[in-house]
Formats: sequence, structure tokens, C-alpha cells
Amino acid sequence: MSTTPVPTTRAAEHAFADRHIGPRPADTRAMLDALGHADWSRIVGSVPAGIRHERPLELPPARSEAEVLARLRELAARNVQRVQMIGQGYYDTHTPQVIQRGVLESPAWYTAYTPYQPEISQGRLEGLLNFQTAVADLTGLPVANASLLDEATAVAEAVLLMQRANKASTAATVVLDAELHPQTLAVTRARAEAVGISAVVADLDGGLPHLPDGLTGLVLQQPGTSGRLRDHAPLIARAKELGALVAVAADLLALTLITPPGEQGADVAVGSAQRFGVPLFFGGPHAAFMAVRAGLERQLPGRLVGVSKDSAGRTALRLALQPREQHIRREKATSNICTAQALLAVVAGMYAVHHGPEGLRAVARHAHGAARALARRLAGGGVDVVHEDFFDTVTVRVPGRAAVVVAEAERRGVNLRLVDADHVGVSCDETTTPDHLAAVLAAFGVDGDRTAGGFEIPAALRRTSDFLTHPTFHAHRSETQMTRYLRRLADRDLALDRTMIPLGSCTMKLNAATEMRAMLWPGFASIHPFAPDHQTAGWRELIAELEAWLAEVTGYDRVSVQPNAGSQGELAGLLAIRGYHRSRGAAERTVCLVPASAHGTNAASAVLAGMRVVTVRTAEDGSIDLSDLHTKLAEHGPRLAAIMLTYPSTHGVFDTEVREVCEAVHAAGGQVYVDGANLNALIGLAQPGEFGGDVSHLNLHKTFCIPHGGGGPGVGPVAVREHLAPFLPGDAAAPDGDGGLPVSASRYGSAGVLMISWAYIALMGADGLAAATRNALLAANYVARRLDAYFPVLYTGADGLVAHECILDLRDLTKRSGVTAEDVAKRLIDYGFHAPTLSFPVAGTLMVEPTESEDLAELDRFVEAMASIHGEIEQVLDGQVALAESPVRLAPHPAADVATDTWDRAYSRDQAAFPVPGLRQDKYFPPVSRIDNAYGDRNLMCSCPPAAAFEEA
Amino acid sequence: MSTTPVPTTRAAEHAFADRHIGPRPADTRAMLDALGHADWSRIVGSVPAGIRHERPLELPPARSEAEVLARLRELAARNVQRVQMIGQGYYDTHTPQVIQRGVLESPAWYTAYTPYQPEISQGRLEGLLNFQTAVADLTGLPVANASLLDEATAVAEAVLLMQRANKASTAATVVLDAELHPQTLAVTRARAEAVGISAVVADLDGGLPHLPDGLTGLVLQQPGTSGRLRDHAPLIARAKELGALVAVAADLLALTLITPPGEQGADVAVGSAQRFGVPLFFGGPHAAFMAVRAGLERQLPGRLVGVSKDSAGRTALRLALQPREQHIRREKATSNICTAQALLAVVAGMYAVHHGPEGLRAVARHAHGAARALARRLAGGGVDVVHEDFFDTVTVRVPGRAAVVVAEAERRGVNLRLVDADHVGVSCDETTTPDHLAAVLAAFGVDGDRTAGGFEIPAALRRTSDFLTHPTFHAHRSETQMTRYLRRLADRDLALDRTMIPLGSCTMKLNAATEMRAMLWPGFASIHPFAPDHQTAGWRELIAELEAWLAEVTGYDRVSVQPNAGSQGELAGLLAIRGYHRSRGAAERTVCLVPASAHGTNAASAVLAGMRVVTVRTAEDGSIDLSDLHTKLAEHGPRLAAIMLTYPSTHGVFDTEVREVCEAVHAAGGQVYVDGANLNALIGLAQPGEFGGDVSHLNLHKTFCIPHGGGGPGVGPVAVREHLAPFLPGDAAAPDGDGGLPVSASRYGSAGVLMISWAYIALMGADGLAAATRNALLAANYVARRLDAYFPVLYTGADGLVAHECILDLRDLTKRSGVTAEDVAKRLIDYGFHAPTLSFPVAGTLMVEPTESEDLAELDRFVEAMASIHGEIEQVLDGQVALAESPVRLAPHPAADVATDTWDRAYSRDQAAFPVPGLRQDKYFPPVSRIDNAYGDRNLMCSCPPAAAFEEA
Repeated sequence: MSTTPVPTTRAAEHAFADRHIGPRPADTRAMLDALGHADWSRIVGSVPAGIRHERPLELPPARSEAEVLARLRELAARNVQRVQMIGQGYYDTHTPQVIQRGVLESPAWYTAYTPYQPEISQGRLEGLLNFQTAVADLTGLPVANASLLDEATAVAEAVLLMQRANKASTAATVVLDAELHPQTLAVTRARAEAVGISAVVADLDGGLPHLPDGLTGLVLQQPGTSGRLRDHAPLIARAKELGALVAVAADLLALTLITPPGEQGADVAVGSAQRFGVPLFFGGPHAAFMAVRAGLERQLPGRLVGVSKDSAGRTALRLALQPREQHIRREKATSNICTAQALLAVVAGMYAVHHGPEGLRAVARHAHGAARALARRLAGGGVDVVHEDFFDTVTVRVPGRAAVVVAEAERRGVNLRLVDADHVGVSCDETTTPDHLAAVLAAFGVDGDRTAGGFEIPAALRRTSDFLTHPTFHAHRSETQMTRYLRRLADRDLALDRTMIPLGSCTMKLNAATEMRAMLWPGFASIHPFAPDHQTAGWRELIAELEAWLAEVTGYDRVSVQPNAGSQGELAGLLAIRGYHRSRGAAERTVCLVPASAHGTNAASAVLAGMRVVTVRTAEDGSIDLSDLHTKLAEHGPRLAAIMLTYPSTHGVFDTEVREVCEAVHAAGGQVYVDGANLNALIGLAQPGEFGGDVSHLNLHKTFCIPHGGGGPGVGPVAVREHLAPFLPGDAAAPDGDGGLPVSASRYGSAGVLMISWAYIALMGADGLAAATRNALLAANYVARRLDAYFPVLYTGADGLVAHECILDLRDLTKRSGVTAEDVAKRLIDYGFHAPTLSFPVAGTLMVEPTESEDLAELDRFVEAMASIHGEIEQVLDGQVALAESPVRLAPHPAADVATDTWDRAYSRDQAAFPVPGLRQDKYFPPVSRIDNAYGDRNLMCSCPPAAAFEEA
Repeated sequence: MSTTPVPTTRAAEHAFADRHIGPRPADTRAMLDALGHADWSRIVGSVPAGIRHERPLELPPARSEAEVLARLRELAARNVQRVQMIGQGYYDTHTPQVIQRGVLESPAWYTAYTPYQPEISQGRLEGLLNFQTAVADLTGLPVANASLLDEATAVAEAVLLMQRANKASTAATVVLDAELHPQTLAVTRARAEAVGISAVVADLDGGLPHLPDGLTGLVLQQPGTSGRLRDHAPLIARAKELGALVAVAADLLALTLITPPGEQGADVAVGSAQRFGVPLFFGGPHAAFMAVRAGLERQLPGRLVGVSKDSAGRTALRLALQPREQHIRREKATSNICTAQALLAVVAGMYAVHHGPEGLRAVARHAHGAARALARRLAGGGVDVVHEDFFDTVTVRVPGRAAVVVAEAERRGVNLRLVDADHVGVSCDETTTPDHLAAVLAAFGVDGDRTAGGFEIPAALRRTSDFLTHPTFHAHRSETQMTRYLRRLADRDLALDRTMIPLGSCTMKLNAATEMRAMLWPGFASIHPFAPDHQTAGWRELIAELEAWLAEVTGYDRVSVQPNAGSQGELAGLLAIRGYHRSRGAAERTVCLVPASAHGTNAASAVLAGMRVVTVRTAEDGSIDLSDLHTKLAEHGPRLAAIMLTYPSTHGVFDTEVREVCEAVHAAGGQVYVDGANLNALIGLAQPGEFGGDVSHLNLHKTFCIPHGGGGPGVGPVAVREHLAPFLPGDAAAPDGDGGLPVSASRYGSAGVLMISWAYIALMGADGLAAATRNALLAANYVARRLDAYFPVLYTGADGLVAHECILDLRDLTKRSGVTAEDVAKRLIDYGFHAPTLSFPVAGTLMVEPTESEDLAELDRFVEAMASIHGEIEQVLDGQVALAESPVRLAPHPAADVATDTWDRAYSRDQAAFPVPGLRQDKYFPPVSRIDNAYGDRNLMCSCPPAAAFEEA
């Protein structure tokens, strides 16, 4: 029977792309006019002809929002929802609905950027501080960071930390507890091996193994992957005698009932906070954590929130100890991690706030009680329960019958862990019900009528110390107050739901509601990463489609979404290059050329991939200095592993010679790594895989609409040409499987947010994506042109155009007036804007990337603000106001400072708060004035400050 | 196989009731101490022993949040989702996801109260003004209200309006177009009949019928229920010649393409805005609308937003023309409607903002194009399409085969309308796809290969005028800007997500995230109200459970959830009483006794039920004056229909003689109506159905956690004793069915939000509900005790206690200082609070109802604010500051007035903005200062003001 065609007027007029892209057609015309362009040709033509891609991308036609949601429902329905008792690092949890609504469904939280501008980030910084406080309290260690990517990489980071901290024994060995989760062992061994650390996996029941070269560090797990609780005190003491550091991978919930690692002498504790309210998400994103003893703070990888003061002495939060991070230390950084799991860390921290200590203990008792009840009935029924001491996980010996039991449990709606042919693991959690246990007992063929005794947590391991004593964990216990707390924190911050965030290199574009819609559907969110494949068909189809589309977009042959941050994508790409060279007998190729203007992460990642970084000079426009490149190629040719390029360059310009650069590197036997940070300038117009790249990583949280979440989750897929495909990340939980070194604990990394990017591509289609790119280029050029009169644009291409971002050079103004780029960034807060990128890639500049999602009105509002600030700087230049007394230097201005009686400034209150008329309505006031970073680093405090600290303010 | 018990510690410690109830046990202790109570006995004992209910309510045990969500998923899964092409006033629509996220999922929008305090309601007032503007533009009439309850009651209101406006012909008849939807006819006839208006249904193809007594009003429908478009101009002109007014029930989407009623001379237009982005919701809640020609503004029922100015001359919005409303005019009000459908009106208005005029036209063209394509193929296939002219609905004649066709379509996944044995209706909408049409054609047995011509909208009916020309409908077209617009408006307002809203009689308690969770699940939201019963098993089971639970809570025998607002519950209850008396041959019983202190709606509802209001005096404590009652009973005994009581009284006191009052009324042959407004003081402690009530309405949006939505949706179930059960509202769409007069267009009224109350009861269980009541009583008494020193508590019971609210008497202070209750209400805004109820039930007072959901910290913050304001009043009394120059009189203080250079006030900026220290952090500034209501009423403007109005400010 025929299909009746329906008029398609509406689909054409209301394509999603028109909602994603900010400017209306008339606005676009006005913007082109402002540039003196008759049409799009010069904008599109700024992509060099030699690399421009003329055919449309081969992607499915753009779908409507309704069609996308229907397809996602279909895919979700193809995943099988089961009671998840597999455990192995992932446990079901009740996400408190008030937190789901107030954080995960609130654009104010999820569209926020990393809190590099602390004055407009006090809310999310407090959320992260709650997380750090909860982790520190529970682990019994004083300083915790603001999350890591997953438990496996956290253990790897702990190994690196112990190596760094324990400089005396760099030749020595790290011992890994055989009770670590298999995926943890696989990732950690891969990462250790890449940097030449010798890691030995050992059964520690007989004590530490003898190591001829001595011991650098020891990593234990509590409870073990088998569920077993062991008293680690003797092992820890022995390791310390040997001069080693000790890290413990611990279950945060178990720590409410058992002695924390810090109290047993551990130096480091790591683990996952997933079960603190974060859905299973088919493996991620989840916040991992790391806490350390005093003295190791400066060795901590990742971001760390600390307490400081603002210029008026008010308590204020900000990221602490930044000088140890990769954007400053490059290859000498403590780690390559930038984006972590901020949004999930906030959820986990709020879960602790929501439950408080007694609530967390009750949740833990529930999980333990269920496991104990199960063990007693299994034992009573004559089944062999392997361990007497456990928290929530029972390992059961059923010789030869394990697969049968697991299958029978599945038939009854429960997923168990198939440990091996003879053993089954059963993990209980806060969602476990009597019905679940009955199904498990039935799967084991036990009727549950007979109950054995025992299985209590041993007295020696019972926790006696308090935790979460801070008032924050006691004051928001009613849902009414929790709702208000979340709103209050959100209101302190500026996120995309209130203002443009013109961050160069970070592509803060629209995170559309339709893209976000499916994330928390149980059909996606409730799937365990180790569920059998026949239960995850929907997930795998979605991921396969996304990987194929990303390959088409980038011009590569294969993509892996496993890396759960851009930094991990870089690492995976470099490990693929390393694997490739080794497979060809060229293990000596370890030199990685990194341009001077590269993101700091590039160098840090190269080091973690076991490479040696050699810097290549960059020309004034940020492109590679060809003559220096040839010198370096000549010098390092036979040892050359790769070059890392960013395209368009980090200076925001399309280099016309990129193809030649790639060819020269290839000729020298090297591989070309094209950093995908600036992919938003290329999609639909050029493909890195076509113009010479062998491998790229992408940032789905930049280019493909996953919200930044206040600093994560991120997804950093790695895309490769065919010859590198065998070296894409393997599955850490199936270490004998295909593929290269795994970089994440779970096969698909931050799977839980992949449908956001899937939806974006499905909604936009090839034409929409290309239109977005054109509009991103136009917006950057429009802003550059309009601002150039005030703040000169530092770099343009041969055609006088920038790519998708522009660098505003303040150095001359700074020299003449003393006003710094930071002053401008802080003053923008008073105009209701988040600052552009500060002093990257050139010190003393601001880098602006407006993206395609901002409409003309918002671009003009930004230009107006910048012009007005320029006027304020001129007043300093003219001597009308002294720099130290100027509004730019004393910015930003909280309401408490302006709407008050004391006013001794050289400028008016109106100038402070309402420098342009549009601000009088809907004014955003920052909660604090400029924050003293140095004070905070000198007086390091990284957990919730005592109330007195606030009173003082 | 046995079920293994799991330790229940967690369930016990973390019951939802503990999250719903604000105070922790230690707080409760402190509050009892403040009252000098050793335990709960005196609080519980304030409910008179004679009516106190000693056994626990028979409700299912409290369930956990996870259990409730699981059960709701199960119920949703039992509803069958189909393509809904039934039409008949309900059409599928794509809710823009950005609006779903930004409004329907945002506590800032849905927890807001009715905008009676306009200074903290500018955001939702703008949202409603957008709705009014869209309705006015589309209907071609200048003034539209801020929503009515549904299309059927809107037509009934139009009939009443025409009767009121056309005073000359009160004996005359109203003619109702036979093309009105059946449910509209049923509701309108019932309502007309109740007040003695003669309404004749007529086929108007042959012109107006001859009416001996002349014509008051004519109601037409465009397009007709059959889908037919007719040129109404001749009928309208003829009716006007006869001195009648004309109302047109119109489809808002059709009006983008066809000539609007206003341009054809209609006086009134009504209809439903459901298809502007609001889900089908199994029949409601949806926003209905009414627009009128100039000169009828003061006759408009419902709320009306108008533009005015604040004290600084800034444009400011507020509810206009309030003197015509029921809370002031009582039985002389224009209507009994209070709560309308504000949240849904905001959604519909934002849908218009989102799409703009060209987008709405495209949506309409899509629906029309689909219907036309269908008709052409049906006609081409030899099927008889009844009407040549239609918008979106095709009526098809299939003699004797209609049921077969409908069944075949259902088999293919599509619901059609079974008009009668020979006719099938098919309605297209923006969600219609070629696949849907193919299924419909197949159901008719047509292959679609042959296409007839025709079915164009006739040239004479094509709209030529512009609409939505205001910039608001053009400036938020990108999702980024729409997101920010919704956030910006939300930020202007105070809702429960930021502060306690201590409104007496309005019970602003927690709207928990879990309760809200299921509302938008397609399994509930996508169900058409006229879907066959076998598709709606889940819905009907949920509703039956809720009705049974509400009957148990109130002590009645039967409940109907049909009334979609408290006002409609009152009306339904009074109509049941009327039906009962008539069934016993006592039609003369029409006198309704209404206490002087009653809610104004009581009297208005009595009038609409055809009753005559006789006022009974109230004693000082708000209870019935027994001696006056006996006088009135003696006087009106044989004509007595009912008495309307509120219990505890509107004065917030438990009257000990309520049982005696009920008995006296019964002895006189009257029925007792107990208004459920104050049910929050009774649940679990007393039952109106037990202590003498024959009927009550409840407010699920007060007592049972449906959020107020800024003024709706509401649900006002009516609960009756067995003898009144036959007179509960019948189904308007099945007029020959059982039951009394229908009061809503759809069988279950605002079905779409019923799961909120269902979830609340399921989560709380009997003990939780009783604990909530106890805590509500305690909180009110705590606040009363603490505030009495500053503002005397007007009424207490014999035991010195109040019930769940307290009235603060400001009259003496006002007399002495000139400071009014309104001044205090406005000054509270500066302290970050929504005002208590102002001057109800006693002029010059404030009525405070804290509810059980506020914790002690928030109660104390409120007490601190009130005490501080009292101090400010004392400064006026002391002569330290003149009243006209005092912060209470000049409150509230926007940031633009305080954080500015000009400051000529007699008090300091700090006093203005930060009168208590806690305000320095997270301060809320209102967007406008005190609003001039009189100015706005004198210069009535009820649609988006021109931009110049803002510039002026």
C-alpha cells in the first residue's frame, strides 16, 4: 500500500539546525555586511583550497526532534533492564530525585564551564568541595581532589603519584593486589608499562612478594574484587618499612562501616563514587576520587578545590595549586587530566549531603545486610560461600556450574557476575529487595529455609571514627531545603543558560534539551557495563552509529569512543602510534614533536605514552615553523614517533601548509596526530583524516554538544586511519580480547552521555553540520572585526580572516595602562559575561570563540561590553582614574559591595554595577569580589570550611 | 520458594515522610519546648475530641520513592500509546523540548504561586502576557484573559458573560451551534440550566432559529466539531441585528490560516490552547482562553494580566481589574474561577514565542496539508468525504462501517473518532506523518494511488491580517536564547524553590521531585481523553485508587476527580446537592447559607449552582454564630439547600461545635458542604465526612502536593456521602451515561497531574499523612507564638492554640503608625520572602500558614524578618522616620534603585537591601518597586507593551 506524501514545508522551515544556530538569516546578512562580504564564499574560502572538502558528508538526512526521540526510545527499548548484581566496581543506586531534578536536569548546573573563573563559579565549587570533604572524611585522608575519570585510571594515577613522590626508588617495582578489579589491573598495567614502570600483580595472602629492586608502591583493594574484606594494616606497615608508598582502592560506601585506609596508614586512597547516586550508565560517566595524606597535596593529579578569600576578606572558593597542572607544567605536569567528572562529583557530593552520615550508614547497612542474609541462606542451603568477611559482595563456589547459575539468575531477571567456571559473584546495593534475593537463591537452587550464622563485619575492621560532621551534611535533610540549596548554589554561577561563554578552544555551544532528553531513561542509564551483549543491543547499535558518523565527519576509518576525556583521547591516540611503531619493529621511535603553541595537555599526554617531547617552534600565526620542523626532522628522524598538530592552529588561523607539514613528517617515518580541539572550524569543510592526519581525538563535550558540566564529563573519542585501527583501545575487562591498550575502565568510557552527540548529528545532518561550521567562522570573524578597533586581533590568515576564534592582544594596552587581560576578564563579570580564555596560547591575550549558537543580539551585547571596558581602560590611560582605583582593577562587584552605604571608590556605583543600560534589568551580581589565589595556596584548605570562616567575612 | 527478609533499617530511617516534613526530631523538640508542650498531645488535642479520629487511616503502607516510581511505570505501561487522530478538541502536539525543560521541569516555574504579589511575579506575568497577546492576536479581539479551565467551561463562561453583558434580554435564549463539540454542549447546557438560562442547540445551516423571546447570545464553533469550516459572517451579522452577542469557539491553530472571529464581528472568542505544545494528558490540564471586544473587559471571567508602572515609572505587570473577581465581589463576581491553568498558559504562550508567526503558520499548514492530502486520496479512492472545506479534520461517511474502520485503524496503531455508525472523523496535527496517513487510508481500504483535487481553504475564509508582530515573538528563536529567556523570567520571581511561601489557606508545601516525575511520561501524557477504555487501564486504575484513598482520607463514600479546580469542585458539590433535592421533589430548596468569613468563591459557586446566597454571621473566632444560624434556619428552613462551612474555620481555629452545626442543618433538611481548603489541618486527625459533612471538595494543589504552577493547574475533587453519589459529575462526552451534571470537558478533568497526589499518598502512607498534619499544626503554633509579641495573633481556640494557620492582626499598628498590612507584605520581599495572605479573611491582617514542609531554620528566618520589620514600624511610631519616607512604605527595593548613585532616602542603603545579616549572601532583588495598580486599571493594556514602554522606564 502506498505512502501518502505529506507536505514538507514545516520540516524545511523548522529544522533543528535553525534552532541550534543562533543568527537568523537577516542577522547573517548583517554580519556578512559588517565584514564587507557579498556572500559566504570568503568565509568558506578561509579554509585553504588545498584541504577543502567539496562533497557533503555522507550522513543520514537530518531528523526532526520528534524523530530523534522516537529512535532513541526504540534503541533504549532494545536494551534489557535487569536487576544488576554483577558488581565489579559498578553498583545500582537510587539517584535521589531531588538531585536528579536540581542538578542533572538543570541547565544551570550542566551547562556550566570548568570553574577557572571562580568568582562566577562559587556554587559549583561548593558542590565540588562537598565531594572532596565527603571523600576525605570517608577515606580518613585529609586532602581529596575534585574527581578523576574512573577507578581504573585513578589507580593508574596513584601508581604514577607514588613513583613521583618516591623519587628514591625509581627503578623499583609497584605491586598490584590481585584483588584489584580486572579492569583496574588491565588499565594500570598498560599505563605503567607505557612509562616504564614495572608493575607486578601479586596474591598478597602470603604477604608482600620479594622484589630484588625494592618496592616503590603498593596498591591494595578494599573490599577486594571478590568481595573479601581483609585487614590491610600489616601489609601497609610492612610496605612502609620497605620505603614504599601505599594506595588503597576503596569502596566509598563500605568506608561508612569499615576502617578507612587513612587510619591504617595508607598514603593514598582512590575509588569510584558512582554508587553515591550516579546511575550505572553502561560504564560511565562516574566520578572517581583520590585522597592523599598531608604532604602529598602537590602531587595530586586533577583539579583541587580550595578555600581562599576575596578582596573584601569573604570566604571564597577556587581551584587550588594550579601550577602543578598540565596547562602550566606541560610535560612536567602531575598528570594530563583536564576535564574530569565534575557534574557527577557534584551529584555524589550532594548524595552525601542528602543522606548525611546516618543516612549513608543506613544505606551501607542495607547493602551489607542483604549480602549477609544471602550468604547465610546460601550457606544454610549447603552452598559454598567462599569468604567469611565481606561488605556487599558474596563470592560463591559452584564447581562447574557457574555459567548455569548465572543463566538461571538472568532468566529470573537478575544479572550476576560470572567469575570463572566455578565461581559466581553476587553484589548487593541500596536497591536490593527481598524479591531480588529470592531470585538469586532460586538461581542457586536454594530454598532459603535454612539459615547459617556468621558473616558479620569483623570487629577489628569496624569503623569507629565520625565522618561528615560538617553542618553542610546536616542542614539540607528535608527535600524543601535540598531544593533550595541546589538552586542557591546554581544562582551563584554563570552558565550557558544565562550568558554566552566565549571561551576560545572550548566551544561552548548549545546543549539542546532534545539532546539531553534520553540520558536518564532507565533503558540507557540502568545498564551495567558488564551486562551480557545480548542485553545491550540498543547501546551497541547507538555507539556503532556514532563511531561511524564521527569517522565520516573526520575523514578517518575507525573511531573508538572509549576515552572518557580529551586527555585520554590524546593518550589513546599516542598509544596507538606507539603500538604501530612497535608492531613494525620500530620501538625506538619515541620522539614526539609538539609545537610551542600547543595545548599543554599534548606534551603531558606524550610523556604518559612513554614519549620524549621535542618542541617545534611556531610561526607568528601559530602555524608550524617549517624551517624548524625540517631541522627537528633531520635531527630526530629515525627516532621520530609523531608530531602533534592543532588545526586550525591554537592561534585561530588556518595554516595553508598543513598538508606539506603532514607529508614531511610522514616522509620522516612519523605519524601525524591532529588535535581535535578546533574541529568546530572544520566539520563539513575539511577532514583531518583526509589532509594528512593518522589519528585525532575529538572532544564531544566541545564540538558535539555534550555539556561541560562544570568540568566534566567529557568524551574524547580517538579516530584513526586503517593502519592504526588494530591499536585502538581494547576492552579492559576482557584483557585477552582484540585491540590495543585500554585507557578506561569500561569498554565505551562515558557511554551514558553518548546519545547527546548521537542526537546532535542525527538532528543536524550533513548540511546542518556544515552550516554550523560556517556560522561559527562567521561569528568569530564578526566579533574579531568589531573588536579589533578596541583590542587588536593578534593573528589572521592571509585573507585577513580568523578561523572559529580570535585572539585579542592586550599586551600593548597592558604595557601602557597596567590593565591586564585578567582585569578585563574579571570586569566582564560585571557585564554579565563569562570571560574568554585567558592568556592561552599567548600570555597577555584573550581568546574569543563565540560559536555558531550565539545570535547576533548576544554577540553585539558582548561587543558592547568589551567596547565599554575599553573606554574604562582609556580613562586609566588618560589619567582620569588611577589603575589601582579603577573599576577594571577592582572588578568584579558583588551586590553586597555596591548596594551598601560605604562607597569610597573613585568611580560611581552606577559605573560599578550598571556600566551599560541593558544591565539594569536582570542584573547578575557575583557572590564575591576578586579572589586571592595566592592566599589560598599558602593556606591550603580543601574541605568544607568551619562556619567560623564564614562569620569572619 | 521463600522470600528472604532484608533488614529494613533503611526504609525506617529514610521514609519519604522525613523528607517531606521539614523539621528534624530535634527541631520538633525545640518547637514544642517553645510552646511549653511536653509532647504532641496538646497539638493533637487542639482538634476537638468530639470529632477526633482515633484509628489510623486505612491506606496502603508507605512506599519508598523507588517503589512508587516502579508502580507508576507499571501503570503507565498499561496505557496503550496510539497515534491520536480522534480530535474533538484534543490534538497531539510536539512540546518543544526547550520549553519542557525550561518550564514544565523547572521548579522555579511550577512551584510558583498565583501572581497576587506582582513585584515578585514579573516573570510569570510576562509569560501569561505572552499568552494573552497570542490569543488576542489570533482571535482578532483586543483583550484576552490569562486562561480558563477548558474549552467547554469557557463556552459556559461565554454564555454567562453574554447574559450579563446583554442585560436587556435576560428572559431570552442562548443558541448553541450544533457544531460545538458534544462535551462543550453537555457542560454548557448543564451550566446554563443551573442558572436558569434557556439554551437551544440548533443546526445553523438554515440560519438562526426563530425564538419567541428573542436572542441573548449565539455560540458558534469554527471549525465545527465535524471539521467543517463555515463563513460565520452572515450569522454573526444577523444575531447582532437581533441584539444578541456572539461568541465563537475557535481553534487557535486554525486561526493562523483563517479569518479570525474578531474580524467577523464576534464579541467573544473562546477555545483551548492545548495544541500549543501541551500534551494530551488524558484530557487535561490544558489552558482554555477567552478574548473579548473592547467594552467587555470588565465582564471577563478569570484572571487578566495588565501592564502598569512601578513607583519609579518602570513598566511593570500585575493582575488587572481585580475588583470584578470572586474574592472581592463574592456572589456578584463575574465567575467563580480562581485557579486557572497558568502553567499551561505559559507553555502555550512560549510555544507561540518559540515558533513565531511564520512557525505557527507552518505548523498549521502541516496539519491542513496532511488533512487535505488524506481527503484527496480518500475521495480519489471513492470514499465519501463529507465536507469540502475543513482545516485539519476530515469527516468520512462509511455507511454502516464506521466501527469497523475505527477498529481497523486501531489495529494499525491509529485512534480515529467514531462519530456514529456511519461516520468516522480523522484529525491531523503537527505530529502527523506520511506513515500515519498511510495507516488511515489502509483502514478505509483505500490504496491512495488515485488523488482527487479540491479541499483548499476557501479564499473568503483565508486570513490576511498579521499576528504576533511584537518583538517578543521574534527575538527568542534560537534554543540558546529561548533557554535564557525562560531562565531570565524565572529569575525575576520568587517561588518555593527559593523561599517559604507562608500563604494562609493556600498550603504551599513541598512539591517533591518524585511526585512530579511521571507527569510527562508518554505512557500517561500521550493518552487522548476519548481513547477507548481498553487503552487506558493504567490511567483508570490510578484514578480509582486515588479516588478511594481520598474517600478514606476525608471519611466520605465516593470521590470524583473531575472538577479541575477548587471552584469547580465547589460547583460540582453544590450541583450534587441540588440534584439530590430535586430527586426528592424538593426543587424549592435553593437557599445556601454562607458564613460571612467564607472564601468569596463559596458564594460565587452557589450562585452558579442556581442557589440564593444567605449570609450567616460568624463569631469572632470565625466559627458560625449559632444564634444567627438558628435564626436563618428558622427563616429559610423549607427552602434550605445547604450550608457551606470551612473547617477549621477561615480564621484558623478549630470550632468545637461543628458537629452541632451540621446536625442543626440536617435537622432543617439541608445538606452540609465542608470546604476542603483547610484540610491540611485535619488529615489523619478528623474526617469531614464523619463529623457531619455530606459533601466536600478538596484542593489537590493545596493539600496533596500538586504544585500551584503560578496559578494553576488545580484539581478540586468532590467527595460525597453515599446518598449524593448518583449526583457526582457525569461524563460530558457520554451525555446519556450515569451521573449528574458534568463540570469539565473531560471525564477526569486535569487527569494529567493526578499521579502527583497519588504519589504523595503512596509515599506518605497513613502515618506519614498524620505526621504531616501534626507538623503543620505545630509549625503554625510555633510561628504564632513567636510572632505574637510583634503582631498579635487574632484568633486562637479555647486552648490558646491555632490550627494550621494564624492571622496576625496589624489593625492597631496600622491605626497608630499608618503602616499597612500591604506595606509589611511588600517589605517582606526585601527579606527574600513571599508575603502571607493579605487581608483575608479579615481586612488589615496577614494570614500565615507555614505548612509541615518548612524546617525550623526557615521558620526562624521568617520570624527574624517579621521581627525586624516590626522594628522598622516602631521607628515610624517613634517618629524616627516619617511613614512616607520609611523603608516599609517604599518597599520593595530593586537592585537598580539601591546599587545606584542617587539615594535620597531617609534610611540607608544597607537598611534597604540588607536589613538582616543573612541577606548579604544570595540576596534576591525584585525587578521592580511597588506597582501602581490603579494606574494600570485606568490605562488598561493587556498584551505585550510596545518597546517604547520599556524605554521610557
